[in-house]
Amino acid sequence: MSGDGGQGLTYHGAGVDRGAARTAIAAIAGLAARTRRPGVVADVGGFGGLFHLAPLGMSDPVLVAGADGVGTKLKVAFWAKRHRGVGQDLVAMSVNDVLAHGAEPLFFLDYYASGRTDPAVVAEVVAGVADGCQEAGCALLGGETAELPGMYPEGEYELAGFCVGAVERDRVIDGARVRPGDAVVGVASSGLHSNGFALARRALFDGAGLRLDSTPPELGGTPLVDELLRPTRIYVRAVLALLRAGVEVHGIAHITGGGLAENLARALAPGTGAVLRPQRWRRPPVFALIQRAGGISEDEMRRTFNIGVGMTLVLPAAAAGRAARLLADAGETAQVIGEVVAGAGVRFAD
Amino acid sequence: MSGDGGQGLTYHGAGVDRGAARTAIAAIAGLAARTRRPGVVADVGGFGGLFHLAPLGMSDPVLVAGADGVGTKLKVAFWAKRHRGVGQDLVAMSVNDVLAHGAEPLFFLDYYASGRTDPAVVAEVVAGVADGCQEAGCALLGGETAELPGMYPEGEYELAGFCVGAVERDRVIDGARVRPGDAVVGVASSGLHSNGFALARRALFDGAGLRLDSTPPELGGTPLVDELLRPTRIYVRAVLALLRAGVEVHGIAHITGGGLAENLARALAPGTGAVLRPQRWRRPPVFALIQRAGGISEDEMRRTFNIGVGMTLVLPAAAAGRAARLLADAGETAQVIGEVVAGAGVRFAD
Repeated sequence: MSGDGGQGLTYHGAGVDRGAARTAIAAIAGLAARTRRPGVVADVGGFGGLFHLAPLGMSDPVLVAGADGVGTKLKVAFWAKRHRGVGQDLVAMSVNDVLAHGAEPLFFLDYYASGRTDPAVVAEVVAGVADGCQEAGCALLGGETAELPGMYPEGEYELAGFCVGAVERDRVIDGARVRPGDAVVGVASSGLHSNGFALARRALFDGAGLRLDSTPPELGGTPLVDELLRPTRIYVRAVLALLRAGVEVHGIAHITGGGLAENLARALAPGTGAVLRPQRWRRPPVFALIQRAGGISEDEMRRTFNIGVGMTLVLPAAAAGRAARLLADAGETAQVIGEVVAGAGVRFAD
Repeated sequence: MSGDGGQGLTYHGAGVDRGAARTAIAAIAGLAARTRRPGVVADVGGFGGLFHLAPLGMSDPVLVAGADGVGTKLKVAFWAKRHRGVGQDLVAMSVNDVLAHGAEPLFFLDYYASGRTDPAVVAEVVAGVADGCQEAGCALLGGETAELPGMYPEGEYELAGFCVGAVERDRVIDGARVRPGDAVVGVASSGLHSNGFALARRALFDGAGLRLDSTPPELGGTPLVDELLRPTRIYVRAVLALLRAGVEVHGIAHITGGGLAENLARALAPGTGAVLRPQRWRRPPVFALIQRAGGISEDEMRRTFNIGVGMTLVLPAAAAGRAARLLADAGETAQVIGEVVAGAGVRFAD
């Protein structure tokens, strides 16, 4: 509290450290630089970030914007003192949402809040944000590092992320063209992604008494902490490659809170539903571990977790094979996991 | 914990209430509807919000994006259980940043996080967000209501806001055209806005022992809580009117954390500085109250608070009178408060 100096109150004395904020911002500027892409006019430093649309050469752009956080996966990061992965998660959650409308993510902004700015933690989180932006091909255009004395316990912070993408108006994907008979292609998740952590933590730590460094046999030697903090997969490059190759896609769902049923339903046309066949895809063993640890019903698992599918694409059945091959060429694991039917809702055919 | 039911763990049992989230989202959809504007294709409900640029009729748009929160002003809202004003603050903080580059705010997204979703509190906050969006003429295009069990004490929440605006490329305001001799026009703030609350709370409550319902004589009968929670002024309509009237503006600064000196400096060209004359503008009495309560130095006041000026415009001296009149016509209080000089930095000529 050096700023107090017996001369009355100061902002520093009240818990706000301008020096730490400046150190953090300098680090962020360097990280943002490695995410620059065509369109960026000015990133960190001004009142806002500036992005010029003309270099994209679009004729009738629709902007698509998404905002999200990473939920209580943060608690695992705090506990493990490993912060880079959740930075990537933050980007993944909103770029995958933007992608679900067929849009190319253009830029991203982050909001980081803590009780006391720790420049090392900020730098690690934002390095992960920059990793995610590079993976998604979007620029880190700005953000806010907020110090809120008394709002967060030591060692904790909150993250929110915001992404804007663009898509030609006649190529917006919104589910309207989905027809009965369309195939549902599932793209594999990397594990839990960033949803269901309140339930997973309760089951694994409170229920089964596991620890971060536990190596349960189900995970084949992987420490639990590595499994839990593995970053959310970013599907941008693979799905944009598919769209640019001219594959007709009618609907895309990013599988987050609410699971396959609720999210896939948002990508379907009125009057259509879907039947999913769980035996068609591999379910990563972490889900069985959580299910057993918490005695969780199958229905609850399906409503809470992605259970192995991080994104679904709905497209004409005749295009499904080519789509799966193109996704595989881009490094994803994908296969037909179900089909669209007349009616409403998503059900599982076990 | 009705979801537990002896059948093993559920997401509900782990603290996540999907029903409350759905209730909150339904309320938000209704509030978003009253902020619709040309360009909005789809707001709350999809994976992302969609905004079509063509209706704006722009020839070479640059997008301007800002992200911000409202800091520990939230603590006063929690304490007073009054949440609508901070919703408007959230919008103000980022739309005023976007405006500082000459851009028209187009859409806004919010992130609301709490330990347990209270649909009534969410609805009140988002009603304030919708108020702010209407005032700024931008659409509430989406957002996220996150439930993070264990992350926030009962009755507390975090807010982050994101705004995207657009400006013709040849009309971007970035300070580059600022010249010595330019006038600095100050636009009055409505009070504290959303900065410096850690220091203000320490001085008023811990230092002077005031309470939310105190009516210190300096405030002329206004209860302290009303003064502290008065929403941040939104300058969008007034400043866009000025720009559309063809007034040449070289630089705009939104006066937030860091105060007049630090923020005005960001709106100047290299090689230019400014001299400000504090006797030229009215300083709302809340600042004297805080200063006296905390024994805060004048320098610290100036670095922490807006001390009565919420936005500054830098423009040719010959245009300053017309600018002040146009701002007054739009309901703002504005006058020349200083001038640009050769050199660097912003100093106060008392």
